[in-house]
Amino acid sequence: MTPQSEDFSAWYNELVIKAELVDRGPVRGTMVIRPYGYRIWELIQAELDRLIKQTGHQNAYFPLLIPQSYLQREAEHVEGFAPELAVVTHAGGKQLEEPLVVRPTSETVIGEYMAKWISSYRDLPLLLNQWANVVRWELRPRMFLRTTEFLWQEGHTAYADEVGAMAETMLALDEIYARTARELAAMPVIEGEKTAAERFAGAVRTFSIEAMMRDGRALQAGTSHYLGTNFARAFNIQYTAEDSQLRYAHTTSFGMTTRMIGGVIMTHGDDKGLVLPPRLAPYQVVIVPIGRGDQAAEVSAAAAVLAARLAAAGIRAHVDDRPQLSPGFKFNDWELRGVPIRLELGPRDLAAGSALMALRLGGAKEPISLAGAPARLADELAAFQDLLLERATAFRDAHTVSTDEWDDFTKAVATGWALALHCGTRECEEEIKAQTGATARCIPLDGEPASGRCIRCDLPSAYGKRVIFGRAY
Amino acid sequence: MTPQSEDFSAWYNELVIKAELVDRGPVRGTMVIRPYGYRIWELIQAELDRLIKQTGHQNAYFPLLIPQSYLQREAEHVEGFAPELAVVTHAGGKQLEEPLVVRPTSETVIGEYMAKWISSYRDLPLLLNQWANVVRWELRPRMFLRTTEFLWQEGHTAYADEVGAMAETMLALDEIYARTARELAAMPVIEGEKTAAERFAGAVRTFSIEAMMRDGRALQAGTSHYLGTNFARAFNIQYTAEDSQLRYAHTTSFGMTTRMIGGVIMTHGDDKGLVLPPRLAPYQVVIVPIGRGDQAAEVSAAAAVLAARLAAAGIRAHVDDRPQLSPGFKFNDWELRGVPIRLELGPRDLAAGSALMALRLGGAKEPISLAGAPARLADELAAFQDLLLERATAFRDAHTVSTDEWDDFTKAVATGWALALHCGTRECEEEIKAQTGATARCIPLDGEPASGRCIRCDLPSAYGKRVIFGRAY
Repeated sequence: MTPQSEDFSAWYNELVIKAELVDRGPVRGTMVIRPYGYRIWELIQAELDRLIKQTGHQNAYFPLLIPQSYLQREAEHVEGFAPELAVVTHAGGKQLEEPLVVRPTSETVIGEYMAKWISSYRDLPLLLNQWANVVRWELRPRMFLRTTEFLWQEGHTAYADEVGAMAETMLALDEIYARTARELAAMPVIEGEKTAAERFAGAVRTFSIEAMMRDGRALQAGTSHYLGTNFARAFNIQYTAEDSQLRYAHTTSFGMTTRMIGGVIMTHGDDKGLVLPPRLAPYQVVIVPIGRGDQAAEVSAAAAVLAARLAAAGIRAHVDDRPQLSPGFKFNDWELRGVPIRLELGPRDLAAGSALMALRLGGAKEPISLAGAPARLADELAAFQDLLLERATAFRDAHTVSTDEWDDFTKAVATGWALALHCGTRECEEEIKAQTGATARCIPLDGEPASGRCIRCDLPSAYGKRVIFGRAY
Repeated sequence: MTPQSEDFSAWYNELVIKAELVDRGPVRGTMVIRPYGYRIWELIQAELDRLIKQTGHQNAYFPLLIPQSYLQREAEHVEGFAPELAVVTHAGGKQLEEPLVVRPTSETVIGEYMAKWISSYRDLPLLLNQWANVVRWELRPRMFLRTTEFLWQEGHTAYADEVGAMAETMLALDEIYARTARELAAMPVIEGEKTAAERFAGAVRTFSIEAMMRDGRALQAGTSHYLGTNFARAFNIQYTAEDSQLRYAHTTSFGMTTRMIGGVIMTHGDDKGLVLPPRLAPYQVVIVPIGRGDQAAEVSAAAAVLAARLAAAGIRAHVDDRPQLSPGFKFNDWELRGVPIRLELGPRDLAAGSALMALRLGGAKEPISLAGAPARLADELAAFQDLLLERATAFRDAHTVSTDEWDDFTKAVATGWALALHCGTRECEEEIKAQTGATARCIPLDGEPASGRCIRCDLPSAYGKRVIFGRAY
């Protein structure tokens, strides 16, 4: 496999295929998510779904095919999405009277039904979520990160006023997305607001979580939008308030996608392959039985018993008993596939009541007692999860430079992020992008107050704090 | 609401909307699945997914958009699905070189990847499942039963030989589908094989579970197909056997859809509304606090405590504390929405340490002790689940007639099912359909041996047993 330092993109493209996470789809830009990759998505889904429900949202399902006219009702929205649409023009053997768009996102169709379901303030807030596939025609596809079709959840809510809707927008960002990224994926994301140039088409304010990949680039890993009354006006989402006045609802939306899998790969992976955070690992522990002839059966049986004991303790364990492959091949294979802990179990280990433990990030192999294995491995997995978050945080901090000098800025964004003051104009952001490839990733929520001159154009700075700039996926 | 006896279709169409299970979609034949309906689907999904994984299948995800040429590779398959296809002809602002079909089912695209992933007998069996949306343009749409887009799981497997693939086909039918229908949905389904006329397009043998609705019609609630080597030949799914010979794999597929929700409604519902089996009920117990003024707060607090105690015991409980609605309105509302058990809690009940229990199928209300409520309600729910299955079984048996007389046959299929001998020719099946509206639902797996003359044409009977005929959804 190409080393990361030589060509990070090539490393990534080779790894996702070799680790059997995905395969290229039959149509350019599409992907087939293989069982090992899909299992990671299921683990993300389970936790996201739990948090989404815990915070009062209910799942629903809206149609895939949306009348083209719906998208045209919100001017910015259609402008943003029109170039990426896939369009059904024929169905049931006939040309359709009105073409149908394959949903690129569902604000429009959900807006139509919110208008139907909401009549009084008592119907608010309306808190919906949908698990779905969406299609956006991509010119520069890359597995998981930008694919023509991807899987996601999209939350859609309606509130009586801006205060409620903004609280929801921040809750989705912080309590759902940042928490999932940090606690599940061990990705130390920064929460912040997008500049006007990077806003979602149709939103009043867009917030995101931004993660740093091991090549220093930024990955937008989840977004949460306050849509104001833009969609409420376009779809006539009105309610009768307590004072009997008819008012527009304030709506929000938020989405996290299969792109998260790409984020996990590029946050933790190394030249040997994937490094999976235990909470997202399809197999947390892989047991490789080692033994030939008469001993093989005994060792295999012991491995199965151990796996069952680990499973009973809530550990996802797997025995690799493929007869045609050597132990050495298996060790490499599970390193490539990012399993946090490998246990080697041979006749001598078995006689000693132990197994040899190897951690994915290296260090000396260590014998551990079979009797105490479930408790010991649970501790090791928790420590491994913490270690990955700490390691990624240290990496991010080491590759983030706060600067007021243009030269330092250009150097910083070549290998990581720059924290810089900015004038807030779109033209200046475009000029920075043209010269360095870097974009304004976000205005971090927890940024220290700061002001002065724009890093690029010397106008007075906006936002009252520094902006994160970086090259992005 | 229209009574079932007056117009069953009208009853159904009104109920699915009033109970807030679905709304009509923006495009003809599509549906919006509302939270109450989607929650039923999630409960079906959870159990199906558990059974699918327990039997060794792994989830994966294949693209929505399939090159049109893929469908054309299997002649019967394309013939069967061509009239129902929705086609994407434009994407990214351009006309596509090859039109893309929105998947009506995924045998073709999955076949393409099976061919890629399978090379040796060691790669078999390959056991995949996908949770997805599919699109089939429907001329006579009906909510849940036949919608242009629906949700389902589709299992796809490849085996070395017919023996393995047929065992898989029967496992999906019996261990996954029949079990889910009976144990979860309380639907006493019949497992059987389809006649040639009713086979899946491209299958060698098709099996289904058939349920009887309360209007006597049959609902095909799940299908499992042995595809032989048809798709293996079309997509070149070959493997090197242990004897080094190159052989075609034998493939299977099986699917269960959101149509199951329609099946639950029409198996158990009555003139008051839905009757949900406890295992599929979003809320198993609804508590209606009754009290005005000073007492309202005390009763509401007690209701919340009770709901929390029920939740801790694994019971899905809900407190209906909508202040603007009367208790009587709420009672009707939850009957309409099919909640198995309602608890009424007023100040006098509270003083007596009890709540008034009302079962969805009627009978006198009964006071139950609050202290013992979790255990008592768990028992009541289990009994309610059993009762629904028994009631549906008795209904089905009372509306099934074994007959050798054409007059009795036509009467039987007007109100239920007929068990009759049949010659096995397609022409005769078509003639029966033209005259009575009934089709061959299945050749039941557990049918007693029987032979004689065809019920319609007097030719010698086929299959060695009676066939179930009925009008179908």
